[in-house]
Order: sequence, then C-alpha cells, then structure tokens
Amino acid sequence: MDTRSKALEYANSHQKLFMDNLISLVRIPSVSTAPEHKGDMQKTAEWLSERLTSLGMKNVQIMPTGGHPVVFAECKAAGETKPTVLIYGHYDVQPVDPIDLWKTPPFEPTQIGDNLFARGASDMKGQVIATLNAIESVMQAGDPPVNMKFIFEGEEEIGSPNLVPFIEKHKDLLACDVALNPDSGMIDDKTPTITYALRGMAYFELRIYGPKQDLHSGLFGGAVHNPAVVLADLIAGMHDDQWRVTLPGFYDKVRSLSDQERIELARLPLTEDYYLQQTGAPALYGEAGYTPAERVGGRPTLDVNGLLSGFTGVGSKTVLPAYAMAKISMRLVPDQNPHEVEKQLIAYLNEKTPPTVRWEITNLSAGWASISDINHPATRAMVEGLEAAWGIKPLYKRDGGSVPVVADMQRILGVDSVLTGFGLADDNIHAPNEKLHLPTWQKGTNALIHFFYNYGNV
Amino acid sequence: MDTRSKALEYANSHQKLFMDNLISLVRIPSVSTAPEHKGDMQKTAEWLSERLTSLGMKNVQIMPTGGHPVVFAECKAAGETKPTVLIYGHYDVQPVDPIDLWKTPPFEPTQIGDNLFARGASDMKGQVIATLNAIESVMQAGDPPVNMKFIFEGEEEIGSPNLVPFIEKHKDLLACDVALNPDSGMIDDKTPTITYALRGMAYFELRIYGPKQDLHSGLFGGAVHNPAVVLADLIAGMHDDQWRVTLPGFYDKVRSLSDQERIELARLPLTEDYYLQQTGAPALYGEAGYTPAERVGGRPTLDVNGLLSGFTGVGSKTVLPAYAMAKISMRLVPDQNPHEVEKQLIAYLNEKTPPTVRWEITNLSAGWASISDINHPATRAMVEGLEAAWGIKPLYKRDGGSVPVVADMQRILGVDSVLTGFGLADDNIHAPNEKLHLPTWQKGTNALIHFFYNYGNV
Repeated sequence: MDTRSKALEYANSHQKLFMDNLISLVRIPSVSTAPEHKGDMQKTAEWLSERLTSLGMKNVQIMPTGGHPVVFAECKAAGETKPTVLIYGHYDVQPVDPIDLWKTPPFEPTQIGDNLFARGASDMKGQVIATLNAIESVMQAGDPPVNMKFIFEGEEEIGSPNLVPFIEKHKDLLACDVALNPDSGMIDDKTPTITYALRGMAYFELRIYGPKQDLHSGLFGGAVHNPAVVLADLIAGMHDDQWRVTLPGFYDKVRSLSDQERIELARLPLTEDYYLQQTGAPALYGEAGYTPAERVGGRPTLDVNGLLSGFTGVGSKTVLPAYAMAKISMRLVPDQNPHEVEKQLIAYLNEKTPPTVRWEITNLSAGWASISDINHPATRAMVEGLEAAWGIKPLYKRDGGSVPVVADMQRILGVDSVLTGFGLADDNIHAPNEKLHLPTWQKGTNALIHFFYNYGNV
Repeated sequence: MDTRSKALEYANSHQKLFMDNLISLVRIPSVSTAPEHKGDMQKTAEWLSERLTSLGMKNVQIMPTGGHPVVFAECKAAGETKPTVLIYGHYDVQPVDPIDLWKTPPFEPTQIGDNLFARGASDMKGQVIATLNAIESVMQAGDPPVNMKFIFEGEEEIGSPNLVPFIEKHKDLLACDVALNPDSGMIDDKTPTITYALRGMAYFELRIYGPKQDLHSGLFGGAVHNPAVVLADLIAGMHDDQWRVTLPGFYDKVRSLSDQERIELARLPLTEDYYLQQTGAPALYGEAGYTPAERVGGRPTLDVNGLLSGFTGVGSKTVLPAYAMAKISMRLVPDQNPHEVEKQLIAYLNEKTPPTVRWEITNLSAGWASISDINHPATRAMVEGLEAAWGIKPLYKRDGGSVPVVADMQRILGVDSVLTGFGLADDNIHAPNEKLHLPTWQKGTNALIHFFYNYGNV
C-alpha cells in the first residue's frame, strides 16, 4: 500500500478521534473581540501547540504579538527537494450575540443529524481541524510528501491588526513556496470550490455628536438637529439610486470583471433563487447592471453593520439623543486601496455633514482584496484533490468575503495562496446557530490528504 | 392677619419641612416604563395618599387603572359657592439611562448649591410637592378659599395609556371648574411663565426586517438589501431640504401662528444664543421660515428618539443585520390629529419602503396638542399670583412639550387648564443630572398660595 493510500485508510478508520478533536477545540470560547475571553484565547493557542507537537511538528511556539498570540510550528521531514506549504488558520471566532437566537449553547457543540452546531464550527475551527486531521493521516503514513509550516492567528475576526507586523518581522521563519488557506467555503455540499479572488475590507465606526447631552424632544425638538437623523441622512447619501456607492472616487481603481470572468461566474449556481432561499430576504437588490454573483464576488459594496442611538429599550422615551453611532464597512475588490477608501469617506463626511453636528470616525479594520493565479501548481494540486474526494471538477469562484492575509502574504512573502474550505453557505457563520456539515468536512479531510501528495508529486 | 398672609407666613416658616417632603418623595424610584419598578409605583401612590390624608383631604383613594394606579382626593370645605380646582400631577419619572453620565445617584437627592439633583426633582415631583406645600399652608391658615380635587397619575412618562379611560369612567367624580397643571416650566428663574399651548405627540417604533437572520456581510453584501440602510433611507426621506416633514398631509391641519402670536413669541428670551447655550449644539437648525421659539412652540416636528441594529459593541463584526429599529416621534400642534398622523406615516412607509424588506410599526403614544383661553379667570388668578411672587408680569408661552391630559380634560370634562410650573430649561429633565432650582421652587409655592386666594376671590 502506498503512503497516500495508507493516509486515506488512517483517516477513514479514525473518524471518531477526528470528531473528538473538533469538539474539544470548539468548546473553548475564543471570542477575540471580547476582553473577558482573553484567557480563552491563550487556552486555545495552547491547545493548538499541544496538538501540533503531538503530530510530530517541530519548533512549536506560541509567539507574542501586540494582541492575541500566533501559534507557529514546522516540519522539514520531506527534505529540501520538496516544496514547503505554509498552512494558515485562525483560532478566534465571532461574538455570539444575539445569544437568545441560538437554539443550542454556542460553546456546547451539539450534533443534530449531519450537522455540528457551535460558534466556530465552520468559521474556521472545523477547517483547522480538517487540516490537522489530514496532516495526522499523512504523518502516520510516514514519509511526508511536503514540508510544512503553520501560522495560526487569533485576530482574524477583528481584522488581524497584528498579523502584518508579525509576518514582516518573521519573514524568514515563514519563507515557503505557497500558502494553504482553508478559510474559504463551498458552493454547496456537492460542489467543491476553489476561490481565486477575495474582497478586501475597510471597516469604520462613525459617531455623530450633537447637543452636549440628551435633550427633551419637546423642549428642543425642531430647533436642535437630531444626531440620529443626521446619521440617517449621511448613510442614505452613501448610495445613489442605482445602488452605487457615492464616496468620491470609490470606483476609480475598481478592476472591471472581464468577459471571461462573467461567463465563469454565470456558471456558478449562485442564482437569484439561491440567494433568496439562503437568506429569506423578501427580494434581492444590488448595483444596477450586475448579477447577484457578480455583485457579491466582483463588485465593491457598502454595508451598515450596526446602529445605535438614544433610547432603545421597551416602550417610549422622548429623548433627542446627544449621539448616534454606525458601524459602516466597505467590501473592496482589486485594485481598491483601503487607505484611500478611508480618505474618500472622510471627504464625503467633510462635504455632507451639516454644521449642526460634529463627526468622528475610527478605522476598525483595513485589508486589500486579492486575486490569484489559477494555474499555480499548488492550485492544480488542490483542484485534483477536490476532484478525487468529490468525483467532479471544482468550480472557480470569486468570494465576497475578506481574507486580507492572502493579499498580505502575496505582498510580504511573495507567495500565492490556495484557498479552499469545507464550509457551506447555510452554515450561519457570523450569525446565531453556526454549524458544520460533517459529511462535507470528512470529504474535505480526504481532499487535503490528496492535495499534500499531489503537490509533493508522490 | 388675613388667611392669605397666614398661609404665606406658614410657608415661610416651614421650608425645612417642605424640603424634607420633597426629598422623601424623589427617593422612590418610580420609573413607570420599567417592570422592575412596579412595587415602587405602588409605594409612591401610597406616599401621596398618606400625605393628602394628613393635609385634611377627604375621600383619599388609590384607584386602579389598566396600569399604574391614580391617586384621588378631594376637599369641599370652601363650600358650594366657591369654585373647584382639579389639581393634576404625575408621580412617575423618566428612566435614568445613560446611568454612567449621572454625577450623583439619581435616586439619592443631593443638594449642590441652590440645586437639588435627582431624577424627578423637576419633572415633576418637585412641582407636585410645591403644590402640596401651598395647600398645606392654605389649610393651616383655615377657611380654604376654593374646593379641591386631585388626580395624580403614574403613567405620564409612558404616554398616559390609561388616563383617558379613567377620566371618562370617573367624569362625575372629577367634575370641576378648572384644572391646575403645574407640569410646565419657566423661561428662566427671573421670568414667571404661563403656558397657553402645548404640542401633541405621536410616538412610534418602526421595525425593518430583511433576511431571516443576520448574514455575513462578505458572503451576501451587495445582493441582500441591508435593513439598517433601508431604515436610514426611510428616516432621511422624512424631511425635505427645508426641514419640513414629508409625511403626506402632515401640514394639512396645522393651525398657522397668528401675527399676534409671532409678536408674543418674539418677546420671549428664547433666542438662538439661548438655545445654543442651553444645549451645547454646534449650531441650530430647523424648519425654514421660523425662529427657534416658533419651531419649538408652534410648529410640528419629527425626531428619532432611538436607533438599534446589528452589532453595537466594541470593535467590529462583519454582519449584515436581519433587523433595524427606530423610535420615531412627532410633536404635533393644533389642530393635528395624532391618529391621522399614524395614517400618514403608514402611507409614507407603504409608498417608500422597497420590496426587499418588510416593515412594522407600533404606536407607543398618541396625544393631541392643546391651546387655552388666556383670559380665563383661573389664568388671570395665576398671572397675578406669579406677579406677586416674582414682582414682574409673567410671559405667555407656547411650550414644545406634550401634556396630552390638557386636551383630554378639555374634551371629556369641558374644562381649561391653567399651566404653570417652576422647572427651568437647564433642569436636564429626561436626561442625566436632572435637578430642581430651589429658590425658584420656593417662590413657586408662594405663587400657588396666591393663586388659590385670587381664584377664590378672598
């Protein structure tokens, strides 16, 4: 039996162990945005370093950053003639609110049918564990086909504020031939997918200040401008009637979709019906002249992620609020620069904000969009791995989400990333009742085993 | 010494007792909107009924309603030849949030200089106590000059949902010649004020529903309409560029300000500088063609009292929210009908809301505006009482706040209300650090003593 077959056989006979690993990791509430979970972040990093050590990885380290630590490890057992794959993952998860909409406790993983429900099950602890399970299978089979390095960060869900300095500082340690990033997803459980482009991100908190404190809306309403109304006016003005973003210069550097790309995107099963069914929205909307798949994958957008002002409890309070806040984020496409987008937002606010209020913004996250070579040897290795696991050729997709590390690694390390992952569109990531589809996750482990042997030409 | 002089002398020599009464009442956290304070509402009603009993009032009752109870009492000692004054007050207070902006605990009354800081000190427990102190002085002097009835409700700050049915049910019990309502305020501590018109209110919660649950803004942003953006669009559309409200028909029944009223309003010291200084707003705004005093007193307005959607915590969460909520209230002037305004809002929403979302509204409060006869004998009695206490003639004012009971009593009991009160514009009512200016409050007690004798022609 060759090593590939041994590895696949090992995976097949150790599903119970693999599942235990998954459950053990998702139990830790590693919410990176919440100061009260700082201890859980450290605990998760320790869990991963112990796991990597037990897999036979060397030089395992929990490395400090300005925020949550990075877990590093490496294995040079394949030898210098073999390529090195840098395996990226993040061990932090999104907050769980609104907690009352969860049907099972978010950090008590619960299997219902083919799905495991838990925060982080899909995004992306499940993907990290699939990769580690594949590596366990490869290591148990002996003679690993590629060299490996690991970079598991704890700040992806808060915009990876310390990752770029970390990669810059440890450029030599992280040197590799290609990065493997399993933080993407599949179209559906029957359709394996390679993601070749991702959107970037520019995320802001906008605060509007009016009177020095909350006022009685009867005694002052009509004479004092209401910051919540000003905020609504400013947000409303950020789109035109074609649902294009109005920030000055926003589209100047947007790379147009090629005819070929539009044909490829049209082949994806991302139809209007698909989006309606996935989301339950009463009807779709979007930038004029583009299909839903193009709007999500290939066009920049502006969304309001949160609003807060005045009295929001039960009943009524006749307050004219002193303050109104919006979380506003733009998804960017190549070749938009997130720092230029910040300047565009500032220019918009300077032009449109009336003198009756003051405004402030905080930049909470900035990341470039990325687009990769679909003919890279590692990409081909993954395409063939997915085909081996699912029996059909994968689709090529532009993903609407943001994985800034892909652009950062391209820029700093000079390497492309192979983007895949085994989450599904109905996994409720970033929402209540996040789940992982276990049969897809198991096939994904097999695809990753194939990938390592394909890329190592074994 | 005549009875009036005896009463004034009694008041002068019992300031310590009067102050103790005030502190005792404001200590009780009677927040009507908060279910956890239900017991405190009952406690406050009991406090008032005990106080009325000790003043020699008869037929003292805590009367049930569909919500918090009404405290009733009466005193017919003046005899049938004398008029009967129905004294209105409310014993509930506004919520205290944002609690962290209070410099002293809201329910631990704290005197700093001439001011007493506490929730309800000005709105309106201080006014209720001033009235009871005046009545104590009158009763101690003997031979009360007028008959009295009392109606103290516990739901004014939540829109008095049970008051109209109560007044209708107890129309005979409440029969009177005029109502005294000390829930208004003064321009400043040197300028006694008679309020002859009040704005009405139509208060709504508007909810916008989009996708069935919160979505990942990367995976769906651009294809699914964002309910927070839709809410902003709808709010932005509710004013035109002259800051007029755009709800269809909103101005159809608005009674124009007469030339005489505009002259009177221009005499009030409610200048632009006054509003800027009171509020700390960077600049004023308002409906084109009107002064600030006209905008607040004589023109209808629309304000957003609260906004909530998506993620509002520290940091970033890349969510496309399923839901967005606004508290929206209109201040109305004669002769707008709050129920017609609800229909206008519904018509606006039906016309403007895109098919990409669903909307719902809840009517949280509805009250008519009111305008009174400034030559009523009771009004003249109060004008002279204020002049006796302050040494100058009071100003006539249209108030921007809402006291729906004034219109309700006119309609159901057929009586005008005399509106006065001794709160000041910088009392921070409905806001953190509410306070009462004690020297003004003491003069107010004297003015009320004069009112009772003036109106009884003693």
